[in-house]
Amino acid sequence: MNTDLQDYSHKRFNVLTGEWVLVSPHRAKRPWQGQNEAVNNEVRPSHDKSCYLCAGNTRINGEINPDYKDVFVFTNDFAALQTSSKSFNVNDGLLIAQSEQGICKVICFSPDHSKSLADMAPKDIEKVVLTWQKEYKELGENPLINYVQIFENKGAVMGCSNPHPHGQIWSQSTLPNEVYKKDLQQRNYFETNKASLLKNYISQELIQKERIIFENEAFVVLVPFWAIWPFETMIVPKKHQTSILDIENTESLLFAEAIAVITKAYDKLFNTSFPYSSGIHQAPTNGEANSHWHWHMSFYPPLLRSATVKKFMVGYEMFGSPQRDITPEIAAKMVRDLVG
Amino acid sequence: MNTDLQDYSHKRFNVLTGEWVLVSPHRAKRPWQGQNEAVNNEVRPSHDKSCYLCAGNTRINGEINPDYKDVFVFTNDFAALQTSSKSFNVNDGLLIAQSEQGICKVICFSPDHSKSLADMAPKDIEKVVLTWQKEYKELGENPLINYVQIFENKGAVMGCSNPHPHGQIWSQSTLPNEVYKKDLQQRNYFETNKASLLKNYISQELIQKERIIFENEAFVVLVPFWAIWPFETMIVPKKHQTSILDIENTESLLFAEAIAVITKAYDKLFNTSFPYSSGIHQAPTNGEANSHWHWHMSFYPPLLRSATVKKFMVGYEMFGSPQRDITPEIAAKMVRDLVG
Ligand SMILES: O=P(O)(O)O[C@H]1O[C@H](CO)[C@@H](O)[C@H](O)[C@H]1O
Ligand SMILES: O=P(O)(O)O[C@H]1O[C@H](CO)[C@@H](O)[C@H](O)[C@H]1O
Repeated sequence: MNTDLQDYSHKRFNVLTGEWVLVSPHRAKRPWQGQNEAVNNEVRPSHDKSCYLCAGNTRINGEINPDYKDVFVFTNDFAALQTSSKSFNVNDGLLIAQSEQGICKVICFSPDHSKSLADMAPKDIEKVVLTWQKEYKELGENPLINYVQIFENKGAVMGCSNPHPHGQIWSQSTLPNEVYKKDLQQRNYFETNKASLLKNYISQELIQKERIIFENEAFVVLVPFWAIWPFETMIVPKKHQTSILDIENTESLLFAEAIAVITKAYDKLFNTSFPYSSGIHQAPTNGEANSHWHWHMSFYPPLLRSATVKKFMVGYEMFGSPQRDITPEIAAKMVRDLVG
Repeated sequence: MNTDLQDYSHKRFNVLTGEWVLVSPHRAKRPWQGQNEAVNNEVRPSHDKSCYLCAGNTRINGEINPDYKDVFVFTNDFAALQTSSKSFNVNDGLLIAQSEQGICKVICFSPDHSKSLADMAPKDIEKVVLTWQKEYKELGENPLINYVQIFENKGAVMGCSNPHPHGQIWSQSTLPNEVYKKDLQQRNYFETNKASLLKNYISQELIQKERIIFENEAFVVLVPFWAIWPFETMIVPKKHQTSILDIENTESLLFAEAIAVITKAYDKLFNTSFPYSSGIHQAPTNGEANSHWHWHMSFYPPLLRSATVKKFMVGYEMFGSPQRDITPEIAAKMVRDLVG
């Protein structure tokens, strides 16, 4: 272990995005006098009459949800992207814009209003994984769609407006900024090294071990060396797989196990239903081979030191670079100790 | 006015960073069922015995603040960057890190605990501007410092832990991510066009007018075409100036006037002390000419449609691109109508 990284201010390079994060380990002792977040640990009923995601209830557009038993997918009633949207371009000097088309969906993970992924058994999470695969495939086959972003916002502090367990998919014609960066970095690495960037990265991590939280036959869960959020983690397949369609039969349950392990450990950390945004970055569906891609799922949780104190990405972070106090190695140890 | 931009999903290109923002105008009607922010409009006393920024009070490290009358600067007691920090490098396969040195300061804008910039007269804000100039110059002359980031976090929702009017400066050896992007884009434009990117941009905006909020002889305040935050704005000098050291005599008061105008209009928008992070991007202090730089001050306010409903940059925004519903043109009109 490099102790300089635990003691002195430094920046770490994110090999996946080509950007830096500032780490200030000595600052972890700073007292907090700012805003406290509300904690909502109320026990929810299994079915809530007023929830527009519960089975049998009516949504805002008048549609009635089916009496679903596991996973339920529908097109977002307030979709940010639509396929029927007009095509146009603006190229007026320094004012540059392009129309963007797409399809936005909502995925209910379970009919049980009271649950989150952390409360679900791996075999039930596996049904969500299989749905992600189906949606990625179907959406990707649409000629209008070249990228499929699967994500979840969990918790009110993450802008989630309904506690019913659910995630979203926004799929669109062009690559979003974050995907574009990772596409570039992985492509450059693959061309130079004839190997997957993330495969080589996790080989290194599996030897050093200090940032590893959990592994099974097919997946590793770790705090990346360049993590931005205090308890950020990443689930990476051990094999070089470009998208979740490469997941082989028994591996979907192993992926579900990895999701179960990390979300359960998170809930234990501050004894609260742990908020986060999670997302899967994977190969664009633009018809190219995209062999340079190695898919992965990331968790960006905002909590810093308790259920009520979060890290604010403001000021310096907005105008400069992301910044963290607690090191990725300490965060990894804290989460690892809660596994199992 | 291009009406397609008001009606259909599209992405806009940020010529300063080279990145895109997704705009979904039709989505502005989405009802909000999520978290509401706390509003704190309590009237504060002019002096608060428990405030570590008020004149005469003792700070956490035992130092006593002087009996200051206008602006007061000191080194951050919990500095994320320090000059005494050890130098080292990590170059271990895909684990790449570099030590980072710097100086962090806190600037109290006024001894009056009850005020914010929005409540201060331009002649008092001018004293803050003159302090920014002095600090930028002095810090920039330190051979360890190659970039000086001036910023303010205002409001608890922006991670500000003390309502006393104050901002910060984090200065460091290398360019932070956001500055690096703007450096590159402005350099490329300057080399190709032999002109300042922002000067040409504001010329275009001053003709179109729909995104302009205010102008005086020396400055223009506008919602940039590529604004991310609902009511994001930018103050740009009309002349090509690389840093705030280029501000000429009478212009410092005109800059202060621009700050007063926009912060006052913000406070009127939702009848609340309007939270934001603001920051000045300007030429690095690395000893190069940096003629491609055109300094500017940006405001990133999170509120979306009332004092309690903010825009969450989560999920899609974290994994994809920033996204907004209300268009920059509508936001500009709303703020412009409150000026004066
Ligand atoms: O320095 P402060 O005010 O204690 O802290 C605040 O501003 C910093 C710089 O933008 C951020 O890193 C912190 O997350 C935020 O809470
Ligand atoms: O789509 P929702 O859940 O209504 O909205 C939430 O997720 C979106 C996608 O991450 C964000 O753009 C919104 O700011 C957030 O409140």
